[in-house]
Amino acid sequence: MTNPVTVEVTRGDLVECRHRGSLAVVDDTGKLICAIGDVEARVFPRSAIKVLQALPLVESGAAEALDLDQAELALCCSSHNGEGVHVKSARVMLLKAGLSEDDLECGSQWPKRMEDIAELIRADETPGALYNNCSGKHAGFLGLAKILGAPTKGYVLPDHPVQQEIKSIVEEFTGETLTTDVCGTDGCSIPTYASPLKGLARAFAVFGTGEGLEPNRADACEQLFEACVNEPFMVAGTDRFCTDVMKVFKGRVFVKTGAEGVFCASIPEKGIGIALKCDDGASRGSECMMAAVLEVLLDLNEDEAKVLNTYVNPPVLTRIDFKAGDIRPSEEFLTDLKAELA
Amino acid sequence: MTNPVTVEVTRGDLVECRHRGSLAVVDDTGKLICAIGDVEARVFPRSAIKVLQALPLVESGAAEALDLDQAELALCCSSHNGEGVHVKSARVMLLKAGLSEDDLECGSQWPKRMEDIAELIRADETPGALYNNCSGKHAGFLGLAKILGAPTKGYVLPDHPVQQEIKSIVEEFTGETLTTDVCGTDGCSIPTYASPLKGLARAFAVFGTGEGLEPNRADACEQLFEACVNEPFMVAGTDRFCTDVMKVFKGRVFVKTGAEGVFCASIPEKGIGIALKCDDGASRGSECMMAAVLEVLLDLNEDEAKVLNTYVNPPVLTRIDFKAGDIRPSEEFLTDLKAELA
Repeated sequence: MTNPVTVEVTRGDLVECRHRGSLAVVDDTGKLICAIGDVEARVFPRSAIKVLQALPLVESGAAEALDLDQAELALCCSSHNGEGVHVKSARVMLLKAGLSEDDLECGSQWPKRMEDIAELIRADETPGALYNNCSGKHAGFLGLAKILGAPTKGYVLPDHPVQQEIKSIVEEFTGETLTTDVCGTDGCSIPTYASPLKGLARAFAVFGTGEGLEPNRADACEQLFEACVNEPFMVAGTDRFCTDVMKVFKGRVFVKTGAEGVFCASIPEKGIGIALKCDDGASRGSECMMAAVLEVLLDLNEDEAKVLNTYVNPPVLTRIDFKAGDIRPSEEFLTDLKAELA
Repeated sequence: MTNPVTVEVTRGDLVECRHRGSLAVVDDTGKLICAIGDVEARVFPRSAIKVLQALPLVESGAAEALDLDQAELALCCSSHNGEGVHVKSARVMLLKAGLSEDDLECGSQWPKRMEDIAELIRADETPGALYNNCSGKHAGFLGLAKILGAPTKGYVLPDHPVQQEIKSIVEEFTGETLTTDVCGTDGCSIPTYASPLKGLARAFAVFGTGEGLEPNRADACEQLFEACVNEPFMVAGTDRFCTDVMKVFKGRVFVKTGAEGVFCASIPEKGIGIALKCDDGASRGSECMMAAVLEVLLDLNEDEAKVLNTYVNPPVLTRIDFKAGDIRPSEEFLTDLKAELA
C-alpha cells in the first residue's frame, strides 16, 4: 500500500519536496475513527511512547518513593533539548536514586541549541549522558530498577525487569503482541517494538481517559498526563512543538514526538488517541501532519490557533530570513482529514 | 506519477523509513539512457549545479584575470563545511577582487563540524558570510561582477548580469527554457530555476565531455572539472560524499550534491550525466541513490568499491555506536538500475 502525500514543501510557485505518511485516530473503546494510509503496518514508536514507558515508575510507587515532582515526571516522558534545566533535573533525579550520570547507558549527545552548545564549549566540556535527549527517561528507568531491587547495570537490555515490564504495558495498551522479530534497538540503546499505528492510537486514547484500566494504572496515567501538560518545557524545550502546543492547550492535549517521523497524541475531551508516521522519517513532515490533525479536530481559541498555525504552515527561509516557500499539508490530506474527522 | 521507493532505512529486521525518488541518466548527445520515476517533472537543482554557475567566471576570462587557482575554482563549485581552509580561501578570493566578506549577500551559517563551531565559540565569534557553505560560489559571482564592470551590490538578484548569464548557460546545457514561473529563491538568496531531471542529466553529460560546445566553453568545463577532481576537499570537506568520492575516483567522476535531495554527476569515460532527486529532500536518500548508481555503472577498483560502499550502505548507529540498522538501496531500485544500466 502506498501512503498518500500528506505534506508538501514549496519554493516559489512550485512544490519542491513531498512527504508521505499514514495516520490513525482511535477512540478509547478501540474503535478506528479515521485511517489515512496503511495503519496496519508496523511502525517503531521510538520516543513517542515515553509516557507509556514511564508508567511502571509511577504505578509501582517508585516515583513516590523517590519523591519525584511533576517536572521530573515530565522529564521522564521527554525528548529534551539538553537545556540547563533538563540536565540539572536529570542529575537530581539520579541523585534521588543514589545514582549518577555514570549509571546512564544512553550515550551522550550535544544539546540541540547553539546557546547550550556554546556554554559547554566555553567551559571546555563535552556533553555527558545527562545531555542525551532521553536522559530523563533513563533516570526514571534507573530509579525504578533501584526501587525494584533489580540490577541497575544493563537496565537497557530487553530481558531486564524494567524493559520487560514496559513491554507488557505497551502490549496491553496497544493490544498488540510484541515479539523479538519486531524489536529494534532505539538510539538510546533500549528496545523499541514496532506496532501498527492503530494500536498506538488506541494506546494514547486509553492513556488520555483511563477507560477500562484498573484504578492504580488509570491514576498513573493521569499523573503523567498532568505532569506533562503542567510542565511542558520539561517534555522538549525552547521552540519545540511538544512544549509550545501543550503550553497553549493547557491540558486539552498531550502530544509527543518520536524519532523518524512518529507523532502520538491524546485528546481526552474527545476520548481519542492519534498516531502518525511520516514515511521518510522527516520531523517537518510529522509535525505538519500532527498540527493539521489538531486544527481539524478541535475548536480552537485565538491563542491555540496561532500557535498551531506556526506548525501547520511554517515558512521555508533563506539564510537572510527571506520566505522562499513554505511547508503545508497537502490538499488531499486536508480533504481526507475533514471528511473523516470534522 | 508516483516515484518508486529507492532507499530503505532499517532497524532490527524491519524497514523503518522509505525514501522515494527519481533518476535520469543521459548521454552527451542528449539520449536518455535510463529513467526511473518521473524525469519530466521540474526539480530545483539548488547547489548541484554550482559548477555550471561557475562557467561564466571561467569562460569570460575573469577567473584568469583574478588569478584564481584550482583550489579557488573548486571552492566556486562547492557546498563546503566552513572548515578553516574553505573560509580562508573564500576570503582570499574576495581580496583578489578588491572585495571583502561585507560584499557577500548569501547570509551567514554555522560551520558543519563541531570542531569548527567550537573554534569560533572559543574565539568568542559568530560566523559571518564567509562560513556560508556557498561563500566560494558567491566570491566567484562577485569577482565576475567586478571584472564585467557590473555593480557588485545586488549580484544575487535574477536581473543582475551575473545571474542572467548563468540562466542563459543553464538553459543551453539543459535544453530547457527557464521562465519566472519556475524560479525560486535558493537558501543563499540567488535564483534557482527548476528543470526536469533529464535536462539536468544532459547538462552534466555535456559538462563532462564538452560534446558540441564551442572551444572556449568546452575549455571552461574542462578547467572546472579538473579543479574539482584535483581539489575535492574544497568542494565539500571532511567526511563528505563529494569529497570522498571524487578523491578516490581520481578524475573518473565529478559529483555534486544539492539541498533537498538533489545529486548530479558527470562520468566522462561513459559520456554520460546523472541527475537524481529524493522526493522528500533527504540527503541520506540522495547519497545512497547516487552511490548505488555509480556502483552499478562503473568497474571499480578495490579502493573505489570500499569508499562507495560506505555511502551505498551506511549503518544506522545508536548513541553508543551500536549498529541498529542500515540505509540501503531498495531491491526494486537496484533491479531497475541493473536492468537499465549494467
